[in-house]
Amino acid sequence: MLKKVFLCLCLACFSFSSLAAASAVSVKEIGSYYVGGKKITLEGLPTYESQLSPGSAKVTIDPNGEYFAYQMYVQYIKLEKPKAKYPLLMWHGGGLSGVTWETTPDGRPGWQWLFAQAGNDVYISDAVERGRATWARYPQINPGEPVFRNPKQAWESFRIGPHYDADPAKREQYANTQFPVAAFEQFMKQSTPRWLTSDQPTQEAYNEYISTFNDGAVIMSHSQGALFAWNSALAHPDKVKALIFVEASPCPALDVDMSSLKNIPILYIYGDINTDYWKKIRDKNLRFKDKMVAQGNDVTWIEMPDRGVHGNTHMIMMDKNSAEVAQIIMDWMKEKGLTK
Amino acid sequence: MLKKVFLCLCLACFSFSSLAAASAVSVKEIGSYYVGGKKITLEGLPTYESQLSPGSAKVTIDPNGEYFAYQMYVQYIKLEKPKAKYPLLMWHGGGLSGVTWETTPDGRPGWQWLFAQAGNDVYISDAVERGRATWARYPQINPGEPVFRNPKQAWESFRIGPHYDADPAKREQYANTQFPVAAFEQFMKQSTPRWLTSDQPTQEAYNEYISTFNDGAVIMSHSQGALFAWNSALAHPDKVKALIFVEASPCPALDVDMSSLKNIPILYIYGDINTDYWKKIRDKNLRFKDKMVAQGNDVTWIEMPDRGVHGNTHMIMMDKNSAEVAQIIMDWMKEKGLTK
Repeated sequence: MLKKVFLCLCLACFSFSSLAAASAVSVKEIGSYYVGGKKITLEGLPTYESQLSPGSAKVTIDPNGEYFAYQMYVQYIKLEKPKAKYPLLMWHGGGLSGVTWETTPDGRPGWQWLFAQAGNDVYISDAVERGRATWARYPQINPGEPVFRNPKQAWESFRIGPHYDADPAKREQYANTQFPVAAFEQFMKQSTPRWLTSDQPTQEAYNEYISTFNDGAVIMSHSQGALFAWNSALAHPDKVKALIFVEASPCPALDVDMSSLKNIPILYIYGDINTDYWKKIRDKNLRFKDKMVAQGNDVTWIEMPDRGVHGNTHMIMMDKNSAEVAQIIMDWMKEKGLTK
Repeated sequence: MLKKVFLCLCLACFSFSSLAAASAVSVKEIGSYYVGGKKITLEGLPTYESQLSPGSAKVTIDPNGEYFAYQMYVQYIKLEKPKAKYPLLMWHGGGLSGVTWETTPDGRPGWQWLFAQAGNDVYISDAVERGRATWARYPQINPGEPVFRNPKQAWESFRIGPHYDADPAKREQYANTQFPVAAFEQFMKQSTPRWLTSDQPTQEAYNEYISTFNDGAVIMSHSQGALFAWNSALAHPDKVKALIFVEASPCPALDVDMSSLKNIPILYIYGDINTDYWKKIRDKNLRFKDKMVAQGNDVTWIEMPDRGVHGNTHMIMMDKNSAEVAQIIMDWMKEKGLTK
């Protein structure tokens, strides 16, 4: 009995120390930069009176002048000795920012760090008007007003549960949900307002971004990011070495010529598609996948329930089994010759 | 002669390889989290019609519901073997975000990476409503409208030059400016709109942030960040091991009781104070410094021209000699016993 305890302790020590050793990464550089964007000069607009702070005197605001808008923000971790052949670019979904890929809301390592640990140079970006990309004056530059995602939309449309209530005790979650529901409010804090008018400048910035990777890159997109990824790949097919679609939402129309991408390996990965809304999105992507297969692409389609794993949400990179899902993607990358 | 050239080449190879070896850092973890913030429920507000995209049909917007506001965003690099005794927290200035501390606008390593290379665990944050902290609906939650800094304000008030013009050829810069002026527009892209109404929630989030460092931390603040740093130190004096003020702008009133901070070493570092506007700010801080010295604090006050270096701007961490300035701070940290 004593021997058994001793052995267990030793094993515990061993696993702990090998885990600790595996976790440190030799990093060559961490940094950031902006891509795209342009100077916009507002002229001839009327000045107006505004109270910038309650109780303070009204001041005259002159909205005219120079602004920088439509740039995107990129942050990178470059390893001393990457094992991956190409940098891995992580593109977030709608109403979110690059924070998607960082530490999970309940404090576990995010995919940014897990993929860096696995030997990838990891690039995370904030699309135009989200997060550190910063945003421009509206309605003078951004026509229309920003849209805010509320907790009910996030809870229900991201498949955490069938019914949201402001009172946590009254919220209904799927019994098998993989989302760390206790950290839901922490997750909501990363929601970012967005405009419905910036798809074109966002696409332009993404295209400029991918064009800078002379030796190629792998794009991993989430949700709304899928269409930006497809379009950027079409704009610069020679720069894209693989496309990984995590819970892809929009896709190109079926009649778009995709032949320039026929040599690019493609991975789709979905969680547990358990609502009609998502079944429609999944089926649309399934038809598009069939087109890519028909033109000769090497396409892998994974739905987690097919592997016996249930309850994965739209925010699969934050789910409790996020490391397991990351490993599936890493295995695919290895299988497709994307590692050295 | 040939021997000399050979020797120079060897030395060049040697410095290059030792630089390359020194540049990689063994990183234990990279991650992020949110601090503070609260749920705000809007109720009883009228719905309104809005056109979210030009040409689209008007939709009814219901601004009521739950929002998360007033959180701040924190991103960290934890080293496998830090040489510094305490984490180094970098707090940005007004109208900016944590990007301040990342790669310089002209692409050199930022202070985030230089201080990580020097053995510090580095924490960068985006204050409430800036960058990845994201922002809340206005005017319903944020009273008043956001303020945008224009290029003229940045160029002139940050002491890059005496006169800004939209035409780069007509801009006047100080002859000795250390700012990488060719990258000025790249710098402007990191400007972030801000409200004049959020100092209180911002302070609360900073206070909550510093309170989590049970073993203490060193705060490095820039510009407007100075007052947040002073107030957080007053709120949690046991958590603050040193205060580094980079181009400090606001400071507490002279009659505030600072005695709880009397054992904390303090460093002020300024660039080249060459305008009346900044002389007033500097002199106010100088008077406050004298108060801290009088109560027994160990205070170091550095203005770069006193060291024979001219032309440093308000954005000194981006200036062409930013690595040299960082080294001055690192030497001070070592001298004050903040390294192991």
